[in-house]
Amino acid sequence: MMSMVEIPEGKLIPAIAQDWKTGEVLMLAYINSIALSKTLETGVAHYWSRSRGKLWRKGESSGNEQIVKEILVDCDEDAILLKVEQKGGACHTGYRSCFYRTLDGRIVGKRIFDPDEVYKR
Amino acid sequence: MMSMVEIPEGKLIPAIAQDWKTGEVLMLAYINSIALSKTLETGVAHYWSRSRGKLWRKGESSGNEQIVKEILVDCDEDAILLKVEQKGGACHTGYRSCFYRTLDGRIVGKRIFDPDEVYKR
Repeated sequence: MMSMVEIPEGKLIPAIAQDWKTGEVLMLAYINSIALSKTLETGVAHYWSRSRGKLWRKGESSGNEQIVKEILVDCDEDAILLKVEQKGGACHTGYRSCFYRTLDGRIVGKRIFDPDEVYKR
Repeated sequence: MMSMVEIPEGKLIPAIAQDWKTGEVLMLAYINSIALSKTLETGVAHYWSRSRGKLWRKGESSGNEQIVKEILVDCDEDAILLKVEQKGGACHTGYRSCFYRTLDGRIVGKRIFDPDEVYKR
């Protein structure tokens, strides 16, 4: 029987969210055993906020949640890949993906919502 | 004029390598300013090996190098996405992608080379 991969307690690993249909890489966040358990339990992506030091359900403020379709783990078990159905945009700046520009600052992504509207700032 | 995004000296950030044609996520590694400069200079992906503490040209042992087609940076400038043409397989285990299995251990990736042959162990 195959064993379930687990994240050791206290360890934080990078989690890539990818659009399960288009293959677009949407964002990179961090996940730990608590956030992974919540993700598995609920079917929507949960991460661990490094800046706030707490569990974070993606979309809890914006409504832009991620329905998890598949979870892959890498060879060394120190990164995971979430294939998701992204509601709205993944990026807090209003873009579909957080990777919306090139290294030299050229915008290549699509802005699909106004963050001032969505986050009611 | 748009400014070039730079990685602060001494900082290590996650770098996602993605097949520029199929969109397949191939691996996650780490990059710093030295590795990024080398990548830009040569057009092939260089990373920083955390375990060996040194610059690492992807494919230097295996020949499975990554020709860089585009580099995207995320909103917070703490992750980058390399769109690459992957020679052979990205994973040292012989799979095309390091993300070759699900969290519960089911193999979903394609093994395309024999690591014992390639790395001459």
